[in-house]
Amino acid sequence: MGEFRMTTVEEFEAATARLLETAEKVGADTWQLRVKQQTPHCKFGETGVCCRLCSMGPCRVTPKAPRGICGCDAAGIVARNYLTFTAGGAATHSDHGREICHTLHETSADGDYKVKDPAKLIRIAKEWGVETEGKDIYDLAHEMAELALLEYGKPFGTQRFLKRAPEHTQEIWAREGIEPRAIDREVSQSMHMTHMGCSSDHKALIRHALRAGLSDGWGGSMMGTEFSDVMFGTPHEIDTEANLGVMEVENVNIVVHGHDPSLSEMICEVADSKEMIEKAKAVGAKGITISGVCCTSNEVTMRRGIPMAGNFLQQENVVLTGACEAIIVDVQCIFPALGPLSKCFHTKFITTSPIAQIPGSEFIPFSPETAGRDAKKIVEMAIENFKNRKPELVHIPDQKQKATVGFSFEEIIHKLDGVTNSFVDKTGTTLPLVDCVKSGVLRGAVAMVGCNNPKVRPDVAHIGLMKKFLENDIIVITTGCSAQAAAKAGLMDKRAKDLCGAGLKRVCELADIPPVLHMGSCVDISRMMILASEIAKDSGWKISEIPVLGCAPEWMSEKAVSIGNYVVATGIDTYLGVEPYATGSKEVDELLKGGLRDWVEACFTVETDIDKLGDMMVEAIEKKREALGI
Amino acid sequence: MGEFRMTTVEEFEAATARLLETAEKVGADTWQLRVKQQTPHCKFGETGVCCRLCSMGPCRVTPKAPRGICGCDAAGIVARNYLTFTAGGAATHSDHGREICHTLHETSADGDYKVKDPAKLIRIAKEWGVETEGKDIYDLAHEMAELALLEYGKPFGTQRFLKRAPEHTQEIWAREGIEPRAIDREVSQSMHMTHMGCSSDHKALIRHALRAGLSDGWGGSMMGTEFSDVMFGTPHEIDTEANLGVMEVENVNIVVHGHDPSLSEMICEVADSKEMIEKAKAVGAKGITISGVCCTSNEVTMRRGIPMAGNFLQQENVVLTGACEAIIVDVQCIFPALGPLSKCFHTKFITTSPIAQIPGSEFIPFSPETAGRDAKKIVEMAIENFKNRKPELVHIPDQKQKATVGFSFEEIIHKLDGVTNSFVDKTGTTLPLVDCVKSGVLRGAVAMVGCNNPKVRPDVAHIGLMKKFLENDIIVITTGCSAQAAAKAGLMDKRAKDLCGAGLKRVCELADIPPVLHMGSCVDISRMMILASEIAKDSGWKISEIPVLGCAPEWMSEKAVSIGNYVVATGIDTYLGVEPYATGSKEVDELLKGGLRDWVEACFTVETDIDKLGDMMVEAIEKKREALGI
Repeated sequence: MGEFRMTTVEEFEAATARLLETAEKVGADTWQLRVKQQTPHCKFGETGVCCRLCSMGPCRVTPKAPRGICGCDAAGIVARNYLTFTAGGAATHSDHGREICHTLHETSADGDYKVKDPAKLIRIAKEWGVETEGKDIYDLAHEMAELALLEYGKPFGTQRFLKRAPEHTQEIWAREGIEPRAIDREVSQSMHMTHMGCSSDHKALIRHALRAGLSDGWGGSMMGTEFSDVMFGTPHEIDTEANLGVMEVENVNIVVHGHDPSLSEMICEVADSKEMIEKAKAVGAKGITISGVCCTSNEVTMRRGIPMAGNFLQQENVVLTGACEAIIVDVQCIFPALGPLSKCFHTKFITTSPIAQIPGSEFIPFSPETAGRDAKKIVEMAIENFKNRKPELVHIPDQKQKATVGFSFEEIIHKLDGVTNSFVDKTGTTLPLVDCVKSGVLRGAVAMVGCNNPKVRPDVAHIGLMKKFLENDIIVITTGCSAQAAAKAGLMDKRAKDLCGAGLKRVCELADIPPVLHMGSCVDISRMMILASEIAKDSGWKISEIPVLGCAPEWMSEKAVSIGNYVVATGIDTYLGVEPYATGSKEVDELLKGGLRDWVEACFTVETDIDKLGDMMVEAIEKKREALGI
Repeated sequence: MGEFRMTTVEEFEAATARLLETAEKVGADTWQLRVKQQTPHCKFGETGVCCRLCSMGPCRVTPKAPRGICGCDAAGIVARNYLTFTAGGAATHSDHGREICHTLHETSADGDYKVKDPAKLIRIAKEWGVETEGKDIYDLAHEMAELALLEYGKPFGTQRFLKRAPEHTQEIWAREGIEPRAIDREVSQSMHMTHMGCSSDHKALIRHALRAGLSDGWGGSMMGTEFSDVMFGTPHEIDTEANLGVMEVENVNIVVHGHDPSLSEMICEVADSKEMIEKAKAVGAKGITISGVCCTSNEVTMRRGIPMAGNFLQQENVVLTGACEAIIVDVQCIFPALGPLSKCFHTKFITTSPIAQIPGSEFIPFSPETAGRDAKKIVEMAIENFKNRKPELVHIPDQKQKATVGFSFEEIIHKLDGVTNSFVDKTGTTLPLVDCVKSGVLRGAVAMVGCNNPKVRPDVAHIGLMKKFLENDIIVITTGCSAQAAAKAGLMDKRAKDLCGAGLKRVCELADIPPVLHMGSCVDISRMMILASEIAKDSGWKISEIPVLGCAPEWMSEKAVSIGNYVVATGIDTYLGVEPYATGSKEVDELLKGGLRDWVEACFTVETDIDKLGDMMVEAIEKKREALGI
């Protein structure tokens, strides 16, 4: 093991600057330029007081025009916009989960998709009251897939996974009328409530936003995570690397980008075959390197150790290296800019999902039924494209860090079992963690999640906050682009323990973990919900009492708002570094940032001064400790 | 029968002007004032090039900034906005349909809701392949309700009612990949496709908008219509009246407003009881008058002859009469303005649906389980409120017209049977109508639908266009606020035949119908789809060949766009008098107004010069005749 040194954001930026020189050379458009063109933003839109929900408008509320044509005031308009934003996120995550369930329905012993974790499938089946004895695992998979798909549209009842929450949490959801029913129904009802002349009471709208969010976190996302584990394996500790330096100049570089692992798993499977490696060698490459961007990357890094090329705002950089033979995408967070950008290079930009069709891409529809064949075709295209590189444009920044990833809930429990004295203590619980928190060795935990957003200097908030938490003996669990920021900086290297306070350092050493735990993709925030629930059950604390906070300092997507809603509705205070489009109504703003506490024992805090945000969070954790008397 | 004279729009406006004097006196806000405050509208929003789908923005596309921060261009942004707009409409109609299915599930022989048209229920059950023999009608109702509810969320397959369409139409839908699956899934997928970094290909987005629209028209709306008929009776010819003059100064005036008949049917039922009438007399009233606004009004006028007080832009006028004891609303198109406005009068503004919660209203949650009790409570509140009238504010415009309504598909067939020589011809078909069209006695038909919109002088387009069509021997079928405009003007009086050309006049006389046929509420546009399908089957023409056009000259809501999409996708050219927020992209604009024809044999035409719009439509009908060689 060599000497450990974090990569700084300044070093990230220098690498990007070098790539932007290439962009300029080839006349490519980049987000850095577009941000300039799009700034300043429309204040009506940014504060949420612009309404385009019917064609009498658009209307914009001002002090002189305090109501839209229908008579809706700022609170109603802002809250309606907030709800449609949430619904967009809930629908998106959940539709990803639906695809996973459909893929589960296609699994077979000799097919492209298999059940890799039968024990987990049986565990969930038992939880759902499904008979498992003597049943063929694929029959069970298909039966479970059908039940799971019905969670999207069953006419009666609420989400099955709600029962995983502590009783107190379930009581809150019932009391507040926010137990989600069929997932798609909550989305459709959101769209109905926000229709012209339906709800304009901001409290009713925000209440439904919580419900729609819960249908995501405890419904669609949780099913996405659980059944992905069933098919592709539940993640366990694995080593990998992160940042653009993982791309290899002598190899065919295939970058997977998006969110749904059904595609990327198959690409990895195929690219790893002897046949494809031979083909790569035949075109003069040394081999094939798959790396990833965004959550598809998180999915395959968690299960296969596939390296992470970068996060959201690095997706153009991947192409700008000039060494990307193909960027293969499934759904979500894919810049349409990749269309024209890839045309400036030899890069094949391959879209695969009917959900995400993008101009300037080659569309190769990918379906679970023909997955192996589709994947092979795509990998072959990438290989053949190797010869088309323009050598003068090739530059891969020499920047990467080692990372240890794979911390699913199950793996965390496994790690905790490792420090349990199995002769005296119960294994399979979160009690060792609870004990560390009680004793104060660990002060608490922060769940760092979410995107990049040009409104925040990219990755600075993620990394800066994490460093602050580690110094303060606060362990960080993370998913999504936040996880990738951590990995790129080196915070998922076990040696990063040296950046921690004495308590957390000791915990890292004892449990043999890095101080920032990669829990997966954005749908895997459901893993965090399970972890929080189990801690609550093991400790006897309410979830809202646990010294744990959520944080999305650089969020940008509708999904992030859906997540925020379900995290808060689960009782976890959530801190944001970017304002939602909701400040145009004092009523809505105060509800989100305070009033929600009366409903669900948690609320949002927004602070764009990231350093201040961190201090507030450390303080909030100490306050929670104080309240618990620990 | 006295002499027939149409009421002119100028007379409508004079009546409104008098009511606005009252508004000024009490310091009330009205839409006429708010339109002034909100004009001019934001051009970015109005042309659809403003994007607020993620928090990197909002972005606005201009020639100098041709792409949003993610790289999405105008075509992608406009098409995404168009799809979310459509999804909002499809979700809204369909969620209304869902409530109807849930109400059907609550029917019982001795309950508040009954099966009034068992024959229709059995007919649909047979169509769906459900065994009906020897089954208790309520058991059948519950079984059908469960199947219907599954149409919202079934994991596999497409909408059951698609099979009602002519084979050619079904082939188009299959070929174009727009056969709607579970209704809510199409809504959720819309929200997924429009999520940041999913689809930006405008063709893919618009294609899905057609699919989402079809899930409404041939799914949610059609179920709403069909099962409303099952529970509340299939409409047949009935006489009623229309315009504010239907309110009676000596009576307790209850106005029902919204869309879902579950509430309004029960209110009518209760208000008609001896007990309530006695109570009304006890407070000094002569009786109780129920009248309606918007589609709830259309529902109860079609089945009970309840008079129509007015359409969308008259909802404030109802309160401004000073004689409205209660305005009771369910969902959709309810001005939030009614909150503060009702406070200026004695009027009780009563909201009843969790979907439509509005500040300034009294919220009395209404549910199928407790419908009778809820309705009684509400009617009693209205009666008790009679004494609180401020006599100095009371003024009901002396303006109303007679109307003959109730032209469901079944009633139209019944009327056609009346002119069939049953000794030689088959009854129960549309052939007499087809023959009239073939012979040229009737030149064709226009389906006039949709809202009011202050962008068009209210009702002028509806009434002006209808007059033009009647003069040209084009029969008009109508729903929604367009139907109410016709009724207010007198065009649903059978004597309006004298306004028609010689051919249509003769048809009206022979069939004993008015020249403008009220087919119901906006969800009842599904009745029009069935009519068009049956004409196609009976005539051997493709739907797109029939000389029939759709027209929404004053549309304003998301629902209207969803309707437009399914009408066009069914093969019927559709004419609009208000531009959708889609002109900001030439590609999208050209696709909607032309390119769609290559997919579904029909497209949109938008013309804000209403007289010109009418001329274009008459010409288009003649062209269709020419193409058919008739």
